[in-house]
Amino acid sequence: MTAVPEVLGRARQLVTPILKTAVDSLTDEMRLPAAYHFGWMDREGNPIPDGGGKGIRPALAVLSAEAAGAAGEVGALGGAAVELIHNFSLVHDDIIDDDTERRHQPTVWAAWSVGDAVIVGDALHTLAFELLLDEITPERVAAAQRLARGTSAMIAGQSDDMSFDRRPRVTLADCLEMEARKTGALLSFAASVGAVLAGAPAATVEVLETYGHHLGIAFQAVDDVLGIWGDPSVTGKAAGNDLRERKRSMPVAAVLEGGGETANQLAAAYTERDTDFSVEKLADMIADAGGRSITEQIAADHLDLALEAASSDHLQKAAAAELATVAQFVVDRSF
Amino acid sequence: MTAVPEVLGRARQLVTPILKTAVDSLTDEMRLPAAYHFGWMDREGNPIPDGGGKGIRPALAVLSAEAAGAAGEVGALGGAAVELIHNFSLVHDDIIDDDTERRHQPTVWAAWSVGDAVIVGDALHTLAFELLLDEITPERVAAAQRLARGTSAMIAGQSDDMSFDRRPRVTLADCLEMEARKTGALLSFAASVGAVLAGAPAATVEVLETYGHHLGIAFQAVDDVLGIWGDPSVTGKAAGNDLRERKRSMPVAAVLEGGGETANQLAAAYTERDTDFSVEKLADMIADAGGRSITEQIAADHLDLALEAASSDHLQKAAAAELATVAQFVVDRSF
Repeated sequence: MTAVPEVLGRARQLVTPILKTAVDSLTDEMRLPAAYHFGWMDREGNPIPDGGGKGIRPALAVLSAEAAGAAGEVGALGGAAVELIHNFSLVHDDIIDDDTERRHQPTVWAAWSVGDAVIVGDALHTLAFELLLDEITPERVAAAQRLARGTSAMIAGQSDDMSFDRRPRVTLADCLEMEARKTGALLSFAASVGAVLAGAPAATVEVLETYGHHLGIAFQAVDDVLGIWGDPSVTGKAAGNDLRERKRSMPVAAVLEGGGETANQLAAAYTERDTDFSVEKLADMIADAGGRSITEQIAADHLDLALEAASSDHLQKAAAAELATVAQFVVDRSF
Repeated sequence: MTAVPEVLGRARQLVTPILKTAVDSLTDEMRLPAAYHFGWMDREGNPIPDGGGKGIRPALAVLSAEAAGAAGEVGALGGAAVELIHNFSLVHDDIIDDDTERRHQPTVWAAWSVGDAVIVGDALHTLAFELLLDEITPERVAAAQRLARGTSAMIAGQSDDMSFDRRPRVTLADCLEMEARKTGALLSFAASVGAVLAGAPAATVEVLETYGHHLGIAFQAVDDVLGIWGDPSVTGKAAGNDLRERKRSMPVAAVLEGGGETANQLAAAYTERDTDFSVEKLADMIADAGGRSITEQIAADHLDLALEAASSDHLQKAAAAELATVAQFVVDRSF
């Protein structure tokens, strides 16, 4: 079986040149903040060798072409488009969440300004559609249609997430639905776009979408655990960040839903921010009340569902095995 | 000849239902700020009868279908898509420019929050592409491709505009180029999308694009004059707003380029914001040095070019006459 770093590296080699050419089309003013956000350059414009994210989405796009029996190259364009959308959303979410750091570096709005981060995100957003529709083929158009729908779902999920702060009650089901939209929809697109671009049959595309959907929820469950108990040197975010921001993530929703004394204390801590409980104390309370184990179980269950989809007969075996490895890697990054 | 209000009203009747259905697909949290921005509801969600903007872009979209010999309905979808893009850009530009009022009302970020304005703008942006690509036909796909390119140009123009504050020198040519991208590209799309959706020949589409391009520059020249000398009760913006913000618009660039004593004083006022000159004094200086008349001449020249394009033999006469009337109306709103 191929090792994950090899798979990610191969996909990155196919996708990054397309992505860099697209970003090069931006104005002088936007090019640097965009390249900085992608991890290709520092703030002053010096290139960062081997910079850039892990590239899970490009890997899914490339593997999904191979899983449909096509060359990986066929999925690369879709991988670049999904990276543009994913990164526009990160640049804008950092404004919305008032986050000053990402991957141990100042976020775009913190390094430049809110206005710069707004316009750079907008440019990456449009660029994804411009790229897919640069030439018109039935496969590219189908991919663009799916990307528009996936992006709408992602934005709706982010809007739901924002609304959680204002709602009196957020159930675990609300959380799962929100995260299926916020993360699942775009991962579902990433994990099927290669097959769409390869003109694969609907059954093949659907099973890949199912894989991506469950991987998205598993991924987000892991993220929610890391947001409370993660090691800052690994996550790149401050310890207990989600608790400090009183984010209603899965572990919190699970405890609140369970009821009892801890739920009442937690609800009070979330309603009145100037509580006596420290972030460490809250983390312990949530873990003791089962919030961590429930969320880890959700991650494990959805990983199983993703692996089941990846084992479908509609997929080419070698690529499907790599999809399974990538899914395992995504969930194992923490526990 | 048909009166402008009748033309605008007819286009609005075709476009607004499509636009409202699209906005209804947003999450509960985003629907109200979006409807408020479009002028359909007040902040509390009470409907505003006959609310909404003038609808120049929907009118251009509908007329461009008719100019290509099709029914106006054929252009309505394109009119809705261009309104979504135009309004996403307004919501975001108000954040970027730190503007607290638009059409005599608080802007979305001022009425809700910057985060809400970011996500609502993002949702409208995606919705434009989702709407056009909801069904796949060669005409819709061609329109979506053009919209992606037009939106990229618009964003690049906004980025250029932002960069002017940081540049030591901005020429009148820089201004014109920036405004051709910022306003001209999307008006060019609006003024041709009906013909694109009607499957019109390239020559018809091109002449309509030319019309829209020049109308965009004329429109922006008028806007720049109004930004300095406009009546606040008409513009909905504070008097002398562009001068207070030291915006490098066409009248300012024209004076700076002309050189001489006034240019030196103006350059000093723009470099050191705590100058002795009041906004009224600056407005007089710019007018005396010819900045106003040069910009009015630019508006008149580009109106002529737009009218020339509208007189092309490639266009149906009745619709072309209405396009000419709309162009005249857009430029006449001030002087």
